[in-house]
Amino acid sequence: MSNSTAAYGALKNRFDRLAALQGAQAVLHWDRATMMPEGGARARAEQQAALSLIAHETLTAPEVSELLESAGETVSELDHWDRANLAEMRRIHAHATATPADLVTRLSRQKSATEMLWRKARAANDYASLAPALDELITLIREQAAAKAEAFGLDPYDALLDGYDPGRRAAEIDGLFAELAGFLPGIMRQVMEKQKAALPIEGHFPVDRQERLGREVMGFLGFDFAHGRLDVSHHPFTGGVPEDSRITTRYDEADFTRSLMAVIHETGHSLYERGLPEEWRGQPVGRSRGMTIHESQSLLFEMQAGRSEEFISFLAPRLKEAFGGEGPAWEPDNLLRHYRKVGPSLIRVDADEVTYPLHVILRYRLERQMVAGTLSARDLPAAWNEGMKTLLGTVPPDDASGCMQDIHWPSGSFGYFPTYTLGALAAAQLFAAAKRARPELGERLARGDFTPLVEWVREQVHGQGSRLAPDEILLAATGEPLGTAAFRRHIETRYLS
Amino acid sequence: MSNSTAAYGALKNRFDRLAALQGAQAVLHWDRATMMPEGGARARAEQQAALSLIAHETLTAPEVSELLESAGETVSELDHWDRANLAEMRRIHAHATATPADLVTRLSRQKSATEMLWRKARAANDYASLAPALDELITLIREQAAAKAEAFGLDPYDALLDGYDPGRRAAEIDGLFAELAGFLPGIMRQVMEKQKAALPIEGHFPVDRQERLGREVMGFLGFDFAHGRLDVSHHPFTGGVPEDSRITTRYDEADFTRSLMAVIHETGHSLYERGLPEEWRGQPVGRSRGMTIHESQSLLFEMQAGRSEEFISFLAPRLKEAFGGEGPAWEPDNLLRHYRKVGPSLIRVDADEVTYPLHVILRYRLERQMVAGTLSARDLPAAWNEGMKTLLGTVPPDDASGCMQDIHWPSGSFGYFPTYTLGALAAAQLFAAAKRARPELGERLARGDFTPLVEWVREQVHGQGSRLAPDEILLAATGEPLGTAAFRRHIETRYLS
Repeated sequence: MSNSTAAYGALKNRFDRLAALQGAQAVLHWDRATMMPEGGARARAEQQAALSLIAHETLTAPEVSELLESAGETVSELDHWDRANLAEMRRIHAHATATPADLVTRLSRQKSATEMLWRKARAANDYASLAPALDELITLIREQAAAKAEAFGLDPYDALLDGYDPGRRAAEIDGLFAELAGFLPGIMRQVMEKQKAALPIEGHFPVDRQERLGREVMGFLGFDFAHGRLDVSHHPFTGGVPEDSRITTRYDEADFTRSLMAVIHETGHSLYERGLPEEWRGQPVGRSRGMTIHESQSLLFEMQAGRSEEFISFLAPRLKEAFGGEGPAWEPDNLLRHYRKVGPSLIRVDADEVTYPLHVILRYRLERQMVAGTLSARDLPAAWNEGMKTLLGTVPPDDASGCMQDIHWPSGSFGYFPTYTLGALAAAQLFAAAKRARPELGERLARGDFTPLVEWVREQVHGQGSRLAPDEILLAATGEPLGTAAFRRHIETRYLS
Repeated sequence: MSNSTAAYGALKNRFDRLAALQGAQAVLHWDRATMMPEGGARARAEQQAALSLIAHETLTAPEVSELLESAGETVSELDHWDRANLAEMRRIHAHATATPADLVTRLSRQKSATEMLWRKARAANDYASLAPALDELITLIREQAAAKAEAFGLDPYDALLDGYDPGRRAAEIDGLFAELAGFLPGIMRQVMEKQKAALPIEGHFPVDRQERLGREVMGFLGFDFAHGRLDVSHHPFTGGVPEDSRITTRYDEADFTRSLMAVIHETGHSLYERGLPEEWRGQPVGRSRGMTIHESQSLLFEMQAGRSEEFISFLAPRLKEAFGGEGPAWEPDNLLRHYRKVGPSLIRVDADEVTYPLHVILRYRLERQMVAGTLSARDLPAAWNEGMKTLLGTVPPDDASGCMQDIHWPSGSFGYFPTYTLGALAAAQLFAAAKRARPELGERLARGDFTPLVEWVREQVHGQGSRLAPDEILLAATGEPLGTAAFRRHIETRYLS
């Protein structure tokens, strides 16, 4: 065995350990959001900070640079997967070494503290109690962005973005978002004039029945409960590790429709994790390929397939049966109207797919300013409300339904928001390509059968891990680079034809 | 600041990190037993192995020896708590350095694997499928015992025992257990002749009502749900960290009585964790003082106070109300008979307090042989059945209700079992002392009020952390060293007077 081969082997061992640490982190994170009593917060923050720091030390130990150098000497002898694995090792190492260890600890503690404050502040609609901690967090985020920017020779915002969506740059997003901001408001107005009001679907929908229905629908999508769970959290998310992929939702006993779509959305994320190449488990190339691709998977199942006429027709009689519903409100046509209602709204996670990008564009603009240092936490509410007025023509009555609605900034995620809308663009491209490749897809959905879609996307996306760049995956799967055309076609067909 | 003071400060930081790692481990362990889907086992084992190894590295890094030496130079200037803290650091360090890193990893993996196998083997009553893995585990345990024995100049079994009950030696246990084996079988026969049969308490007891009752009873004992949880697992246990102390139970819808006492038992453990000195959180001296003291706390609440005539009289009408019970079976007298039924049985966790020590003595004898290498996993079932016959006069019909009933050996706990019975002895001493110190204790229990007991034990035991040796805590609290006299008095008074 050459030195170079041995070095690559040593790196693989080290990344296996890193994956185990990150898996442990994922359990701590899931537990905090679903199970942990309030009084456990301080101890949990210490646990998470310790694991963050140890993961950072694992990546930044001096011998890792030497191993990477040595392993690189025979890179030409490696096959495609190993080459991509080594490249990902380099990228992850570069992100880690760019952030000093003490900043990792300070960030981890400040994220935990600010997120816990946010939970209380949002419930009490008390932004003033959050702002100082958020300002401190922004200062640390800017410190991190500056350090990464210098290391990578990038703009600070791009340096953060790269951590969520490898290779993505703000200049490209600016272009895509300008197109969306150009045509979406007009489409929104056209749809609003044209759409027929849905009859309200009224009743009392007990949590246990909603949960049973959610599990049933997860089964249609192929969720494997021997390798995952469904639980409740304030904000739906997908957590855990590929072998134990856990999704959450939240229940409203007066409205089952949102929880159900949240379940489909998170199942989309979970299928991606479960479908990652098993033989590369624990290695960088075996990981999911950033948040744009991840969001494309949740939206592929929720927005593209889940709200298709075919699947809604299949779903309607099952809903009727699950909740004992009666009358025209429970017919497929009305359910479709319900799930396709378009209009300006205050809350991003409740927004329809036509206006959702406008919510994201607002956050993207604001977080770029915060990272640039031209917008402070103190001035955020005013900027938020002004942006809402411009983009959506509506202003929130309070900060709880305004700039405090999302967990992202209080938990330190800056550079994440744009991936929601980039994911929506990608999902439209992927669904169109899947239908071309598997013409039976629609009629199978009409029988509640997601198999053709799952098979296609598993081969084209899930099984690719991080072998290719996000846009290379998309190009290979759809024949097109990331753009707004498929998305525009999708919403014009769905809402205006 | 002197070098020595700086060294002690550096050690405190390192032990804070260790506590955070062990807290993370506690969450992973709790989750595995309560929440994890079966398919997550392999990934979880990797996570736990990684954290074990990192904790081991944190303790055994070369600089720790140097810091301990340097901190020891000014030990006379430290106050009692800091001195005890430094002494505990040394003890923990000695246990860690005695075990080589590769053995830590092999042990962690083999424990996870054997425990998962045990779950299946017990369910299928298939000991043969467990034996090879158990033999491998015993080999590793013997390797660990030998390494520790050499480092500490102890007998191998004593070296393991010391990890669960600091300072405890088998020679002392031999004496105590010989006394118990001497008088318990005779007392058992006397009680069996004298006791009146309890009327069966029959009905369907839904899980949700049992859970509600359990939470209510936890409230009587002072359990704080902002700092803990109640969940379900196959085997009841207390997990988590002092700020987030989680107990579990299991439910049988045909019999609520066992789950209820399990809840009281685990709440006793949890109160100990919650009552540890807050100002020493994360430091060795702030930890609980070994498993004998820990078990004394669960048994103090379950066996001593929980099955007292006073508390059972208070409890009986509440049970009646909770389950809509009617008739003489639900009267205090009958409930008392039910909770004080004595006789030989197959399952340790279901045994009464008179015969329980005989179950422990069996396990103690067998595990000493396994650690000594004179009993292999293959020969365990025969040795088990013979021991049951000798000690309890009964033989299990299968291994599932025989040598496979406990999780301890398959999860690698050798040297743990005796602490159950030592804890029972200590609990009898502590309860007698508490009643002397707080004469109102009995009448308060008759009102469902555990406050005097909790206050006394918090001061005498919980708040002491690891400042003293287990037997010093006991001596200070009760005026007597650990012995069988108080326990014998207790059972003679309760069962024969």
